[in-house]
Amino acid sequence: MDETKIILTDAEMPTAWYNIQPDLPEPLPAVLHPGTGKPVTPDDLAPLFPMALIMQEFSPERYIEIPEEVQSVYRTWRPTTLHRAYQLEKALDTPAKIYYKYEGTSQAGSHKPNTAIAQAYYNKQEGIKRITTETGAGQWGSALSFGCMFFGIELKVYMVSISYHQKPYRRIMMEAWGAKCVPSPSMDTEVGRKMLAEDPDCPGSLGLAISEAVEDAVSREDTHYSLGSVLNHVLMHQTIIGLETKKQLEKAGAYPDVIVGCIGGGSNFAGMFLPFIKDKISGKNPDLRIINVEPASCPTLTKGLYAYDFGDSAGLTPLMKMYTLGHHFMPPPVHAGGLRYHGMAPIICHLHKLGIVEAQSAHQLDTFKAGITFARSEGILSAPETMHAIKVTIDEALKCRESGEAKTILLCHSGHGHVDMAAYDAYLSGKLTNYDYPEEKVKQALAELPQVPTD
Amino acid sequence: MDETKIILTDAEMPTAWYNIQPDLPEPLPAVLHPGTGKPVTPDDLAPLFPMALIMQEFSPERYIEIPEEVQSVYRTWRPTTLHRAYQLEKALDTPAKIYYKYEGTSQAGSHKPNTAIAQAYYNKQEGIKRITTETGAGQWGSALSFGCMFFGIELKVYMVSISYHQKPYRRIMMEAWGAKCVPSPSMDTEVGRKMLAEDPDCPGSLGLAISEAVEDAVSREDTHYSLGSVLNHVLMHQTIIGLETKKQLEKAGAYPDVIVGCIGGGSNFAGMFLPFIKDKISGKNPDLRIINVEPASCPTLTKGLYAYDFGDSAGLTPLMKMYTLGHHFMPPPVHAGGLRYHGMAPIICHLHKLGIVEAQSAHQLDTFKAGITFARSEGILSAPETMHAIKVTIDEALKCRESGEAKTILLCHSGHGHVDMAAYDAYLSGKLTNYDYPEEKVKQALAELPQVPTD
Repeated sequence: MDETKIILTDAEMPTAWYNIQPDLPEPLPAVLHPGTGKPVTPDDLAPLFPMALIMQEFSPERYIEIPEEVQSVYRTWRPTTLHRAYQLEKALDTPAKIYYKYEGTSQAGSHKPNTAIAQAYYNKQEGIKRITTETGAGQWGSALSFGCMFFGIELKVYMVSISYHQKPYRRIMMEAWGAKCVPSPSMDTEVGRKMLAEDPDCPGSLGLAISEAVEDAVSREDTHYSLGSVLNHVLMHQTIIGLETKKQLEKAGAYPDVIVGCIGGGSNFAGMFLPFIKDKISGKNPDLRIINVEPASCPTLTKGLYAYDFGDSAGLTPLMKMYTLGHHFMPPPVHAGGLRYHGMAPIICHLHKLGIVEAQSAHQLDTFKAGITFARSEGILSAPETMHAIKVTIDEALKCRESGEAKTILLCHSGHGHVDMAAYDAYLSGKLTNYDYPEEKVKQALAELPQVPTD
Repeated sequence: MDETKIILTDAEMPTAWYNIQPDLPEPLPAVLHPGTGKPVTPDDLAPLFPMALIMQEFSPERYIEIPEEVQSVYRTWRPTTLHRAYQLEKALDTPAKIYYKYEGTSQAGSHKPNTAIAQAYYNKQEGIKRITTETGAGQWGSALSFGCMFFGIELKVYMVSISYHQKPYRRIMMEAWGAKCVPSPSMDTEVGRKMLAEDPDCPGSLGLAISEAVEDAVSREDTHYSLGSVLNHVLMHQTIIGLETKKQLEKAGAYPDVIVGCIGGGSNFAGMFLPFIKDKISGKNPDLRIINVEPASCPTLTKGLYAYDFGDSAGLTPLMKMYTLGHHFMPPPVHAGGLRYHGMAPIICHLHKLGIVEAQSAHQLDTFKAGITFARSEGILSAPETMHAIKVTIDEALKCRESGEAKTILLCHSGHGHVDMAAYDAYLSGKLTNYDYPEEKVKQALAELPQVPTD
């Protein structure tokens, strides 16, 4: 039997991120200024982001060196382990070879620190003393707290009010790492005060939290804003996942036939598959399948429209061409909070439009069933987001049982579910339900897509 | 700079556990039958444990091979990483070299699976279909659920009622892995029904939960009982921690001057230091210091009496010679639930009595302060138990800053605190308090030590 785990030493950790942009068969559609309809310039973004990150956003360089300071923090938990899922293969009685890259051993329990560390570092380099961000269930807020802690940057997190009160664990993590976390809407911003005056019991939304974080950032010279997914530079920071995995699979003498991951904003899965997709685009491995998995109740790639839309529900961001369910769409309250997003990373959308990656959606109950199968074979209690990827991995492995093919399936495992035990409880006690695709609500939201201004 | 992490491949994982017994300068005091006062025989223990574990309990063999089936499950997360705490060293401005062995990456988040896997395996080998155990806050119950899952053994966990209701996360983990968990006292046993008849709102206790688990186990042919610490074989299974660490330090060209760990029943820390203590006993490293850290409110080694006592508060177990605060002693409700135990592993007590290991106690607020320092340097949110060891590690490192000595300090880090965020919240919001040493209560409990029967 081959090794159960394929590990890399500190010295084997990749020292540069991979930027897909120069290898795309067609360039990405431009990001547009919502006022003029013209492509945004680096200067347009300068009040929010450090110039190093803005340059990465548009960079034509294939590899961008990971600064030594970032590598040094990465090494506190990276390289992460690539596991061979022998116990799952046995449980499924499949000839498929299943590998999974496990990001749950980071101090925050997920892949999010890969970009949080980098973003904190570049802001520090530019003399920024303070960052603001928004968070829903708290995964991103906690990871950025962890990142800012290492570089001595003050962080203020606007956390969707209902989550702030209902899911205190990640809020406490943020505080343990030294960040300040307030429920949004808050009294700390104009937009927050306005909302609270209208509705003192407003439960908040991600769109509103973004608006507060952005207002806070642009109102102070020493402050920037930070985003945890969607943008090109965020996906690029996450390619450390796929670059490590490629080295590890080489050690194991394996190469994937299928790569599976879950997508919300898309950064985790893109971080895995981008270093592989190069092989597909170049024709080296034309048959490689890349399956993006999203919730059936928030099916951006499988049911959305490919159009220009805002990244936030308040309509403050530049316009990005992406598959979208409409920026006013409020996804049903599935437990996979990290996948509840109306849009999708433009890079993934572009690759999907070009037919290079595929997409599937999964119902909540099926994902939890798969999550329990994984827990009772590999032993890992996965985050509800990750269960979406596990569900399709199991489907693919069972197809191999039917066909007798010994395909190699690579699962991108984004993190553990130790803070999501309430969701497990709901499933195990039969209280969890599916949410149908809210077709009418999507139709309404898509009717409100922004007009792209023309000269 | 040397590597931040020292890792081992699957192939480098030790394949035998280390048994200290043949290397002890004096043999352990006998374990006595509470009815006769005579040493217990293997047959006395057979209704509760598989013979393979009973043999390990008394074994004169220095190394006992880890069965391939156990190694195979170990490899799903082991070998664990040894970290060099560069960020903590920098934060403390100390010349000390601090290493920590991190057990928090197991699927259960702690070291407990090291013995849970082994115990489940040997029970399975003996044809046992079902195991019972007790659990307080749920660390052990969840780890054994994880272990039993791998070997298809049914598990029933009696969980102290107040924790069952107040701390549901670990109960849900048990259920996710397929175990049945009931609040104790329960209606499922004689002793439980009796207690509920007397007091329908009884909050339960660890002693009562043990009684229920033992009654359940002895009443069924197909069922055994399992204990998560204290016993010799449990400590031996945990030596995988120290054996790996020894190999890792050799790779780093280092050897510890001081080893620090927290002790409740003692299995985690003994698992770390036993493979090193051999070097001290043999005279190879006579100056090696081994510091056991316990709560100031439950100071078994530092304030207890070395005497024969029961392992459980109901008085059902054999009599063990150990430092004890009296089996009727109910420790104050510190958040480090895993350290709230009146007794201590006989092996650690014996070594302490012989002057080979030392002990210190720490107050709750000081341990949380140290835990936050660790979180804000190394980034890991530690379990409250582990914070005890971190506190003394920091003390030792600061002493090095004073003296200028570049000592090598090895910290045994037992697990993450992602399920203990409520305790962090209490500390960060200023609501956490210290608990003084309850001298009067200990005096009362020590007055009720059992008489050792004589012929």
